[in-house]
Amino acid sequence: MQNSEEQKFRVRNLEISDKGKGFIELLQQLSVCDSVSDKEFEDRFRELTSLGDNHVICVIEDELAGKIVATGSVFIEKKFLRNCIKLSSNCGKVGHVEDVVVDSNVRGKQLGKKIINFLTDHARSVGCYKVILDCSVENKLFYEKCGFKQKEIQMAMYFD
Amino acid sequence: MQNSEEQKFRVRNLEISDKGKGFIELLQQLSVCDSVSDKEFEDRFRELTSLGDNHVICVIEDELAGKIVATGSVFIEKKFLRNCIKLSSNCGKVGHVEDVVVDSNVRGKQLGKKIINFLTDHARSVGCYKVILDCSVENKLFYEKCGFKQKEIQMAMYFD
Repeated sequence: MQNSEEQKFRVRNLEISDKGKGFIELLQQLSVCDSVSDKEFEDRFRELTSLGDNHVICVIEDELAGKIVATGSVFIEKKFLRNCIKLSSNCGKVGHVEDVVVDSNVRGKQLGKKIINFLTDHARSVGCYKVILDCSVENKLFYEKCGFKQKEIQMAMYFD
Repeated sequence: MQNSEEQKFRVRNLEISDKGKGFIELLQQLSVCDSVSDKEFEDRFRELTSLGDNHVICVIEDELAGKIVATGSVFIEKKFLRNCIKLSSNCGKVGHVEDVVVDSNVRGKQLGKKIINFLTDHARSVGCYKVILDCSVENKLFYEKCGFKQKEIQMAMYFD
């Protein structure tokens, strides 16, 4: 039983065919927004794919339903300095996690945790010294369970 | 008087010669850390410069002293969705501001505000719908004066 659930909910990189499996509708659970045309999706997909390891979007597909049920992304920022937990003279890298969402119909299966583990493993594997993200106060406990600690506050300026 | 101060503290893009003008030492006011060799600096500088408008580091040089006294950076994240303040079907962009620091000896001259204005103007000019950053609670008021509002909380995971 555990194994078939594992197989049903594997984490993998976003594929161009995922638009037809509800990827955009899933993102729309994060913020109400217009649709994206196939052309716009493909252009942005290729732009992001060209960044290679520096921008990874992962998804979980419910393979029986052929539907994307969870996603998240991480992009790698390169800095001149690194935080000196280990003394090292290398310039540093930081992973920024964005746009994590689990389909509201598929909660309670630890899919969010799987997404976060995939993204933090990627950041670690490319040499980041830390991963950061912004979340609502309501989601703080979830990220603490994933191994994150609260650090600072997020400020935003919107253009109109 | 105002004009000579204006001229003395212009904002411009980081140049490769700025390492010799105390750029790294200025960044070290943000976090205590090892030095960076000339080779490491040049490699990272070229890597970041190759990203063009997608990663901008600006500085203010005290032109009389030949010393970098303020800096900040912004990188542009590309998303599939955009926040729908204006309804638009374009995929969105978000500016992430990082590593803002003003030399502790040159405070009170609004250099931080100049840096932030430069970075947010850049983000707006390349089509971002918002700019975000993380800061300490102590710096919240400064960013509010720059036009930012508190939004979420920042979580971090450090690798060792």
